[in-house]
Amino acid sequence: MRITRSVQRLEAYVPGEQPKSRRVVKLNTNENPYPPSPECAKVLKGFDLDALRRYPDPEFAALRAAIAKRFRTTSDRVFVGNGSDEILALSARAFVEDDELIASLDPSYSLYKTLAAIRNVEWIGRREGMRLDPKTSLFLWTNPNAPTGVLAPVDEIAAFAKSFRGVVIVDEAYADFARWNAMDLATADANRNVIVMRTFSKSYSLAGLRVGFCVGPADLIAALYKVKDSYNVDAVAQAVALAAFKDRAYHAKTVKAVVKTRKAFVKELEKRGWDVLPTDSNFAFAKPPAPLKAADVFRYLKSREIYVRYFPGPLTGERLRITIGTDGQMETLLKAVDEL
Amino acid sequence: MRITRSVQRLEAYVPGEQPKSRRVVKLNTNENPYPPSPECAKVLKGFDLDALRRYPDPEFAALRAAIAKRFRTTSDRVFVGNGSDEILALSARAFVEDDELIASLDPSYSLYKTLAAIRNVEWIGRREGMRLDPKTSLFLWTNPNAPTGVLAPVDEIAAFAKSFRGVVIVDEAYADFARWNAMDLATADANRNVIVMRTFSKSYSLAGLRVGFCVGPADLIAALYKVKDSYNVDAVAQAVALAAFKDRAYHAKTVKAVVKTRKAFVKELEKRGWDVLPTDSNFAFAKPPAPLKAADVFRYLKSREIYVRYFPGPLTGERLRITIGTDGQMETLLKAVDEL
Repeated sequence: MRITRSVQRLEAYVPGEQPKSRRVVKLNTNENPYPPSPECAKVLKGFDLDALRRYPDPEFAALRAAIAKRFRTTSDRVFVGNGSDEILALSARAFVEDDELIASLDPSYSLYKTLAAIRNVEWIGRREGMRLDPKTSLFLWTNPNAPTGVLAPVDEIAAFAKSFRGVVIVDEAYADFARWNAMDLATADANRNVIVMRTFSKSYSLAGLRVGFCVGPADLIAALYKVKDSYNVDAVAQAVALAAFKDRAYHAKTVKAVVKTRKAFVKELEKRGWDVLPTDSNFAFAKPPAPLKAADVFRYLKSREIYVRYFPGPLTGERLRITIGTDGQMETLLKAVDEL
Repeated sequence: MRITRSVQRLEAYVPGEQPKSRRVVKLNTNENPYPPSPECAKVLKGFDLDALRRYPDPEFAALRAAIAKRFRTTSDRVFVGNGSDEILALSARAFVEDDELIASLDPSYSLYKTLAAIRNVEWIGRREGMRLDPKTSLFLWTNPNAPTGVLAPVDEIAAFAKSFRGVVIVDEAYADFARWNAMDLATADANRNVIVMRTFSKSYSLAGLRVGFCVGPADLIAALYKVKDSYNVDAVAQAVALAAFKDRAYHAKTVKAVVKTRKAFVKELEKRGWDVLPTDSNFAFAKPPAPLKAADVFRYLKSREIYVRYFPGPLTGERLRITIGTDGQMETLLKAVDEL
């Protein structure tokens, strides 16, 4: 066979649906309901076409420097990827030997399991109190977690990292919507094994652009540079992400709007008897009141052109993950729920 | 140790220098001297910012369909990557077991060796008449080859592929500048193991954008989809590449201009006693006449702000790889050579 055994066995990760129709109320992939900063439009409109002729900066110096400055650290502790997904794939290569394991919270971002399968190593979901296999060398800690939205204390992550022999990546895709984050762990001088990862896909409204970044110890960051493709982030993406990153006021405003809508929406769901896990992210993981079943509500909403996410299985199958959209979108969803 | 042994040992691939100064005559990384199609500028200027909010099409349907149509094949035989580099990295994952080998021509694109090291498998450079290790499962055949520029007959590639148990990727980064190409091997119904790879970086003048694609048997293409990141090509890149791809007249015009300049430039070098390998690409691999040494000419040109590429080593160290720029750029280089 020409395809490796592990890839033949592999079940590909299934991303949330991207419906073509603009009529759909799309609350299924945790996108931001607000457009990116107007500064991004300026960059696109004014982009020097001649710059596309040339290879992009392979080390994205300008974007890296801005990220380093924001988090009061140095550029050699910052890496940028073609989305956080690429950073995860590179980490699986740089930090995991062929006979080692990748672990994460369970439930968590379902891509991690696929990531381990692509790397051809075992994946373990760690539940409360469980001891990890000593051959585990990479731990992916989503915080706030997905699909639950629950935020763990930084101290808990720090204590875990201290006891863990491998690398801990704190996947903070949703941290801008949260009350706290673990960035101080990543930038601390004494840090040896914590990488904090962020993305431009959620709070910066740039999911279409594919830019993620991470901050961590210089030796681990250098290892990611060694295994990356030569030019992994394109010139347009570097420039647009930088513009979004610098427009702090706009970013703060959209994040605030999403959090405000989230609080109001959770209250409305609870009024209707739904059980909603405490969320620090831009989505709610919510269980409809009996006798409603999550899977049925999912299908019903879809028939109304309202897309949310449903993950079957014992840990997740009782709930729906609902992205926080605009106030209007949430009202549409609530109205549909009321008509059920 | 937290970094894998193979990555610790790894010598990172060193891409050609990207000098900041616009004064530099940059003939070192095989970029196209002409800007991309004006249609690309239209796409950037008119880009719907709201589309950046959403994840891009994970299967790049529009671009894929256009590529399939151009080469009279079906979309299930087309894959698009974040540059050809990503396609190579994914192929090393999908087509090579942990105990197998990757081989290529020698000399060839120096990234291949790094690619094998990142995949933690052995790389073999195949010279004329050499028998390959039977555990070789991926062969990377650059055609026209780099850094030589020499074009192999399609029959030779076909015969090799027939005798080879693994996957042959014909890396046709420079094929648009060549007299023939192997695309018919990739699209043939009977094809079981040939993938032909192209890029938007060279003939389409979009190196800054990172878009490559490949065509091959549906089962091999499906394997690449399984191991790729969910959203590997961003929305802007998909749209701009499609615009460039559709503007066939502009593409033909720039390719023709580069080939014309190449022919004239090679003649001029030969007049001056240089030995130039027959080239079907957008560069010339040329040996200066004695007593000049390639390394010295390289340094001299650099001191004159003319960047070309020098690859030390027994197979390549006698020559310089000179990208074909505009007529004006080649005249500047020839003038500098004359003043040496």
